[in-house]
Amino acid sequence: MKVAGFGEIMLRLSTDVGKMILQSDSFNVNYGGGEANVLISLSHFGIDTKMITSVSNDDIGKSILRYLRSYDIDTNFVTLGNHRTGIYYLQVGSGIRSSKVIYDRDNSAFCNMKVGDFDIAKALEDVDVFHFSGITLALSNDLRELLMQMLEYCKEHNIMVSYDSNYRAKLWSLEEAREATLKVLPYVDILSAGILDAENILLMNCELEDKHEKLKYYYDEISKTYPNIKHIFSSHRDIESSSVNKLQCNYYTNGILYLSNKINIDSIVDRVGGGDALSAGIIYSIINNKDPKYVCEFATCASALKHSILGDANLVELSDVEKLMYEGVGKIAR
Amino acid sequence: MKVAGFGEIMLRLSTDVGKMILQSDSFNVNYGGGEANVLISLSHFGIDTKMITSVSNDDIGKSILRYLRSYDIDTNFVTLGNHRTGIYYLQVGSGIRSSKVIYDRDNSAFCNMKVGDFDIAKALEDVDVFHFSGITLALSNDLRELLMQMLEYCKEHNIMVSYDSNYRAKLWSLEEAREATLKVLPYVDILSAGILDAENILLMNCELEDKHEKLKYYYDEISKTYPNIKHIFSSHRDIESSSVNKLQCNYYTNGILYLSNKINIDSIVDRVGGGDALSAGIIYSIINNKDPKYVCEFATCASALKHSILGDANLVELSDVEKLMYEGVGKIAR
Amino acid sequence: MKVAGFGEIMLRLSTDVGKMILQSDSFNVNYGGGEANVLISLSHFGIDTKMITSVSNDDIGKSILRYLRSYDIDTNFVTLGNHRTGIYYLQVGSGIRSSKVIYDRDNSAFCNMKVGDFDIAKALEDVDVFHFSGITLALSNDLRELLMQMLEYCKEHNIMVSYDSNYRAKLWSLEEAREATLKVLPYVDILSAGILDAENILLMNCELEDKHEKLKYYYDEISKTYPNIKHIFSSHRDIESSSVNKLQCNYYTNGILYLSNKINIDSIVDRVGGGDALSAGIIYSIINNKDPKYVCEFATCASALKHSILGDANLVELSDVEKLMYEGVGKIAR
Amino acid sequence: MKVAGFGEIMLRLSTDVGKMILQSDSFNVNYGGGEANVLISLSHFGIDTKMITSVSNDDIGKSILRYLRSYDIDTNFVTLGNHRTGIYYLQVGSGIRSSKVIYDRDNSAFCNMKVGDFDIAKALEDVDVFHFSGITLALSNDLRELLMQMLEYCKEHNIMVSYDSNYRAKLWSLEEAREATLKVLPYVDILSAGILDAENILLMNCELEDKHEKLKYYYDEISKTYPNIKHIFSSHRDIESSSVNKLQCNYYTNGILYLSNKINIDSIVDRVGGGDALSAGIIYSIINNKDPKYVCEFATCASALKHSILGDANLVELSDVEKLMYEGVGKIAR
Amino acid sequence: MKVAGFGEIMLRLSTDVGKMILQSDSFNVNYGGGEANVLISLSHFGIDTKMITSVSNDDIGKSILRYLRSYDIDTNFVTLGNHRTGIYYLQVGSGIRSSKVIYDRDNSAFCNMKVGDFDIAKALEDVDVFHFSGITLALSNDLRELLMQMLEYCKEHNIMVSYDSNYRAKLWSLEEAREATLKVLPYVDILSAGILDAENILLMNCELEDKHEKLKYYYDEISKTYPNIKHIFSSHRDIESSSVNKLQCNYYTNGILYLSNKINIDSIVDRVGGGDALSAGIIYSIINNKDPKYVCEFATCASALKHSILGDANLVELSDVEKLMYEGVGKIAR
Amino acid sequence: MKVAGFGEIMLRLSTDVGKMILQSDSFNVNYGGGEANVLISLSHFGIDTKMITSVSNDDIGKSILRYLRSYDIDTNFVTLGNHRTGIYYLQVGSGIRSSKVIYDRDNSAFCNMKVGDFDIAKALEDVDVFHFSGITLALSNDLRELLMQMLEYCKEHNIMVSYDSNYRAKLWSLEEAREATLKVLPYVDILSAGILDAENILLMNCELEDKHEKLKYYYDEISKTYPNIKHIFSSHRDIESSSVNKLQCNYYTNGILYLSNKINIDSIVDRVGGGDALSAGIIYSIINNKDPKYVCEFATCASALKHSILGDANLVELSDVEKLMYEGVGKIAR
Repeated sequence: MKVAGFGEIMLRLSTDVGKMILQSDSFNVNYGGGEANVLISLSHFGIDTKMITSVSNDDIGKSILRYLRSYDIDTNFVTLGNHRTGIYYLQVGSGIRSSKVIYDRDNSAFCNMKVGDFDIAKALEDVDVFHFSGITLALSNDLRELLMQMLEYCKEHNIMVSYDSNYRAKLWSLEEAREATLKVLPYVDILSAGILDAENILLMNCELEDKHEKLKYYYDEISKTYPNIKHIFSSHRDIESSSVNKLQCNYYTNGILYLSNKINIDSIVDRVGGGDALSAGIIYSIINNKDPKYVCEFATCASALKHSILGDANLVELSDVEKLMYEGVGKIAR
Repeated sequence: MKVAGFGEIMLRLSTDVGKMILQSDSFNVNYGGGEANVLISLSHFGIDTKMITSVSNDDIGKSILRYLRSYDIDTNFVTLGNHRTGIYYLQVGSGIRSSKVIYDRDNSAFCNMKVGDFDIAKALEDVDVFHFSGITLALSNDLRELLMQMLEYCKEHNIMVSYDSNYRAKLWSLEEAREATLKVLPYVDILSAGILDAENILLMNCELEDKHEKLKYYYDEISKTYPNIKHIFSSHRDIESSSVNKLQCNYYTNGILYLSNKINIDSIVDRVGGGDALSAGIIYSIINNKDPKYVCEFATCASALKHSILGDANLVELSDVEKLMYEGVGKIAR
Repeated sequence: MKVAGFGEIMLRLSTDVGKMILQSDSFNVNYGGGEANVLISLSHFGIDTKMITSVSNDDIGKSILRYLRSYDIDTNFVTLGNHRTGIYYLQVGSGIRSSKVIYDRDNSAFCNMKVGDFDIAKALEDVDVFHFSGITLALSNDLRELLMQMLEYCKEHNIMVSYDSNYRAKLWSLEEAREATLKVLPYVDILSAGILDAENILLMNCELEDKHEKLKYYYDEISKTYPNIKHIFSSHRDIESSSVNKLQCNYYTNGILYLSNKINIDSIVDRVGGGDALSAGIIYSIINNKDPKYVCEFATCASALKHSILGDANLVELSDVEKLMYEGVGKIAR
Repeated sequence: MKVAGFGEIMLRLSTDVGKMILQSDSFNVNYGGGEANVLISLSHFGIDTKMITSVSNDDIGKSILRYLRSYDIDTNFVTLGNHRTGIYYLQVGSGIRSSKVIYDRDNSAFCNMKVGDFDIAKALEDVDVFHFSGITLALSNDLRELLMQMLEYCKEHNIMVSYDSNYRAKLWSLEEAREATLKVLPYVDILSAGILDAENILLMNCELEDKHEKLKYYYDEISKTYPNIKHIFSSHRDIESSSVNKLQCNYYTNGILYLSNKINIDSIVDRVGGGDALSAGIIYSIINNKDPKYVCEFATCASALKHSILGDANLVELSDVEKLMYEGVGKIAR
Repeated sequence: MKVAGFGEIMLRLSTDVGKMILQSDSFNVNYGGGEANVLISLSHFGIDTKMITSVSNDDIGKSILRYLRSYDIDTNFVTLGNHRTGIYYLQVGSGIRSSKVIYDRDNSAFCNMKVGDFDIAKALEDVDVFHFSGITLALSNDLRELLMQMLEYCKEHNIMVSYDSNYRAKLWSLEEAREATLKVLPYVDILSAGILDAENILLMNCELEDKHEKLKYYYDEISKTYPNIKHIFSSHRDIESSSVNKLQCNYYTNGILYLSNKINIDSIVDRVGGGDALSAGIIYSIINNKDPKYVCEFATCASALKHSILGDANLVELSDVEKLMYEGVGKIAR
Repeated sequence: MKVAGFGEIMLRLSTDVGKMILQSDSFNVNYGGGEANVLISLSHFGIDTKMITSVSNDDIGKSILRYLRSYDIDTNFVTLGNHRTGIYYLQVGSGIRSSKVIYDRDNSAFCNMKVGDFDIAKALEDVDVFHFSGITLALSNDLRELLMQMLEYCKEHNIMVSYDSNYRAKLWSLEEAREATLKVLPYVDILSAGILDAENILLMNCELEDKHEKLKYYYDEISKTYPNIKHIFSSHRDIESSSVNKLQCNYYTNGILYLSNKINIDSIVDRVGGGDALSAGIIYSIINNKDPKYVCEFATCASALKHSILGDANLVELSDVEKLMYEGVGKIAR
């Protein structure tokens, strides 16, 4: 099995714990982007992965290549483009203070990709699952057009499609998101979307009060409209502080909504990429034909572990996740 | 509106998390002092500020000048004196282990200030609020004399006076503190003082058991004796550990005691300066004529946010405090 | 009073918080080993200490000498051997992710020690308490033989013997541990052993359900069989996460099992060495003839404080432990 | 005397010594831009300074404000614009390996400035010297137009104009530079330009072989054409390696070319900003009416000292430069 | 073209500049080994590479995998073995103080490799050049046997063989080295060996005084005895201090000895791996059919640049080396 | 043989290379003082050492105890006094920029020592050599009085006395120094003093032009006046820059002046303590009865090596110095 991702990768510049950007004499250097984050986690679970993207033709772009390769991701379809690499600054919060992200991503090499930049058939010929997010959709018309051609190819070649809605108000309006989403949903097999996506983007609504009943109702509706979508999931997060969250995964398949145990995550080190770690957990479980209960528990544990690791990517292995899942948090592993 | 502060600024040398001084190969460099801490926070809220102090005429003193200027504080009345800059070492605690402060502040440039060192009228001519603390009072007779002349000037020119009692047993006895306090209270408009100050310094007592009733009683007494004091406040802290505190602000005005919501602060990064951040929140709210409920909630949120920031000073902006106040601790701000 | 320890000291290479070994550009350098950890803590409590061990004859071995001396430990019986210094890598966990230890300790200078390497009588002539652990027993036949001669000497010269069972499955089988343990118990005065040790190594069992009743039962049995063992203790740990534990000490003497208060330890910095800090607390209290309640409370507080300090060793002083014991976790110590 | 600068300030992200960008886990954070660099150095020499620029309205832009204010630079004409802050990455060279700069500066807040953004008369009303560089000229037509209006104002109000040619091939062609340069030279009093500027931009040439004779010839020509230009200077650098350079300043006034002593600079820490430190040295000397020999020696020493300081800016004081100038490099200053 | 390397990779733990191991609170983490160093440099020159080795099956071994992959090296024949990863400690010298290496490499996964561990034909089927060193030969009889089978395969399949003599007295005696060397030389095409190798290992001698004449004589002799060896090279280093060296390459082919220019390398950052960078430069040039003058100049420049980079590996690209070769050390590359 | 030192030890706070104090976010922590520096170096040469001093009774003082003990220095006569520990700030220079020291040492625990603080007989009973410096003399009258009693004891008990003149103009006038020096010289066996000391303190003069002849003349005079002084030495330093010095030692005994080879020290890491390393080299050689040529070469090499090590103290061993002395600076020690 091989999973491909198509999306942007940015340079991430983050502060040390307890430091505001205003006070920072140095930034920690990482790289991140939703689709790459998913692939890196999958690679640690033993899945073959391939990234399709474009980065700047300079030392920053080459550092991203180095980063992807280090995690054994196929980079044959990562081009060194003529534009810059986007950046995001992360002011790491703690306790009562929220983390803060500042984007400086305009006009990046990835934003400037368009139909014809690469041979879609070649890029996807050895691929079993194709993953992308709403952020890729939001970045440009050219990207949307390119993406639709890739989705067509997937449909024709039985490549499973995973779509993470991930709406970002700073990138596009709800109307634009709706229009694009309606176009891509008929191609999707695995969907990451929650109540807000259902209501704000898909314009659904219902009078159910209970959160999970409401979610079930929306997921039923989505399944009816798009019978191709066989897996829908989202997570719920109780935020006590920037350092303490409770996490639960909602996973829907074959008309049933499964809820994982709630995991209490304290001493959070880095919350960014928690959603991508969840997606990777879901995709891993699905392509390994795990039962639905496993799917949502595994994904929740995977996502929870991500919160303890600096950087966007989840670097734990299969055995680490299953150990947490079956034995709980424990003693020092000696 | 312009707020002036008169007090000492020290070099602060602190350990990394989890390290004792005994183990430390390096110290983090910051600068701090109650009055300066208040000004820096006010400056981030958009208030004009001015520091009146003296530091050593060397690179340490100049670094303090640089530090104050960087936060847009008027330093025209910061002199480079002939004595050293005081130091405090901070061994940062965590969890069950308390933080520890070692002072090495004797014979500093500030301690050696006296009447005649600067022109009080010039220093205060553009000032609306004058802030000082009990520490300044405690340091020397010369300083006390100088301060009394400044308070006289404030009274004559309708400059609002803010006084933070802040008793430190290592600096003077309760008797000395009482004598000095009784002299300054007739000049004060805004007073930071709690139950211990009332009982130990002002020799009040009452048989009420409830903490808040007792506080109300003392504040009533203080108001009666000193009708000039229109605002009194203090904070209450439930200390679960060095890393987890609950914080509540008590704010008294017009005969009514307002209590803020209790805020749970976990993963505390740096507690030093939490009280100064509270004072800045109170002063900001008062000079902006906020209603009493706002005053105490704003100050509590401001102080709580300080706990997440390295260094003595609160670097958050108005919008950060109000966001916490109205929306609670939340998602990553993107 | 002088306490000697006989055991291995390793170079410890640890990651920064939030970093996996896979991501680490640097390792923090510390040194550790159960017996040395106990001695360092005792030295901070004002007890004379002496280490008996062997390290590599190179800059790593000399760094260990420097480390021991810095804490005022007598190193006259630390030899620079012809083999390497063992290493352990510590990937520091946080929150939901457990810490992980990788040992690379084979064929170390200590493992290669044997009878005749030093003059036992000279090494122990000024010693009042002799401390060693099951790890030393596990490392080689030569070490076991050497140890038995040292225990004989202790018996003949009324040197109190403290033994920390500390079973490690990676070093030897339960059978091997049983055989060695049965040989050393007749020499022991102070024993650190818990329910698992009683059941798995000593093959005890009982039908009591309650954890403390069961422990009491086992400790009674051990006392009956080995009347020489006058103090037995263990700790119990409720693990909420890698960052939050609750700790309680069980201390048995004269047929009575004393339980300390449970201490909630949050924001754990470094859990390694927590057990050694407990042992040091017990030994300190016993040689100072403290009453049993003090013994277990003091040891628990000592161990709890260790969790807030980087490195294997507990660096707090007597007054720090007693302050936590009598006043609880508190304000900044100024 | 007050000196104003008009130019861009970028975030500078640099590697540690010996590290390539490809290997870097963190970047050192500084801020830099030719005009700001000149002002910061002048401020350390005791000159009043004012920056006119625009930065992003986010924490990066505010950090630049903090940076400028910390060095006592008037920031009343620094606006928080609607565009990003430009970035430059600096891979620090050493020995045989050259430093490398990667620019990511397109579409910055400064690039987007235009006539009408601020009131030129107000910005320059208290200014005695106006400094700008060819980089500002190169960035956009709007900036060129705005600059011409500022130069007109300077001429009308007897504000001395200092222009640093500083041609950068990546920003514009020689033809564009020529056209712009010819427009600004009639306004200039102090010119930084070397042989390459004379030949490539001003299309001068001569058959003299000796470097200094040739320079003298060009400077004579420039003076004849632009009698307003009363000071011309440049530096010459013998590059032994990235770590060892020899530096000499050429200063021309009243028809005479003065050459400074050659200074050998070894163990270079940071060469960026060396030219700006030279300009600051020249401007300082001129506005203090120093004799020509002092002018070029002082500027050379100032520039040389800059090479020993991390970051773009020269932070030494007047007395540091004069000490090097009169006493040479010396013992530890105690 | 694809180059394979067969050798050990160790964890490298190094001190910061100016720190002795005795003072070090942290070690910088890198990975190194002669053959891997050569491959990483070749990979940066655009050559396909493959590593054949074994590392420990733990996070240290996996970090080495990550490291190799990050530089695009084929790791399909890197196994995770049942033994440890070797370590070397590097105390970085500076100026008058030499760097110091302490090895702790016994009983590593690589040392334990033997015939049958992998399928030689599969490992070498796509390989054009095979590189190994005397260190690999020295480590064990099993490795020597395995290596001889690999060399046989190379001979049969026209794979070019590159051998770096690299005698280390701590690993084996001159007699052992001689015996092994005589066995491998008949298979070698490219040989790295100097005067000491010729005299001490090959027992050659001559009465020529001039260093280069002597070298030419030995190289002539070697060529005569082993006509298969078509390229021989070595470097000469004038050591002024740990921070300043002069480097020259001696390259012999077709009976002619070519000498490169002497390059002065000051401010040396990290000398380890300089020889491997030279080998990579030679191999790159040979497989690209460069003329002999280019071969030795390119290799010298490559090796010189390595001295400016932290870690064992040379990370510069082709264009960086050629720039130094054709333009010399220069200005900041903007 | 045991060497005792009597002097002050300060906390040393230093900047990173290339950073001014003004820019520093952290300070490196070391401890230093001339006499302690000499003892630490001697301890590394295998000599027994004892420090007599007083430090603050807090974590800074205890860190100094830890520091001394780590290097195996007898601390039984280091008291924890009632006053502060002095501090010195070191702004590390490089290249053209000199290092800069700021003292903040007034009113330290050591300065407050006086006769009666300890039992001189006990302190010196096991001592063979007593070392002190002019700085100790300069600090207070009480110290001078105490010192004279110690010198009396030395004379009576045949303890060799080593005195390092080390005049510091900031501490006392030349007149005060002269008076004190004349009192101590009759007790001295080993004297560190140079031309400036002879001329400015001892008021000698001569018309010889040659530096070495002049020194010989002065040393002859000193020997004649004080026949007890059997060894006199000083060093000469050619300062090319803060990073490059040439060092030579002048050693006089039995009427002959020996000059060491000049050693070129480049890439200087830390020059502070270079003189103390020289003294330690001299003392080591004398008490080991080395011949005069060895004495001055050994001391020069020891001092040169110190320049490559961070901190005040010379941490090299005997074999390191002799290796430099006999083999010169060399290859990597593997």
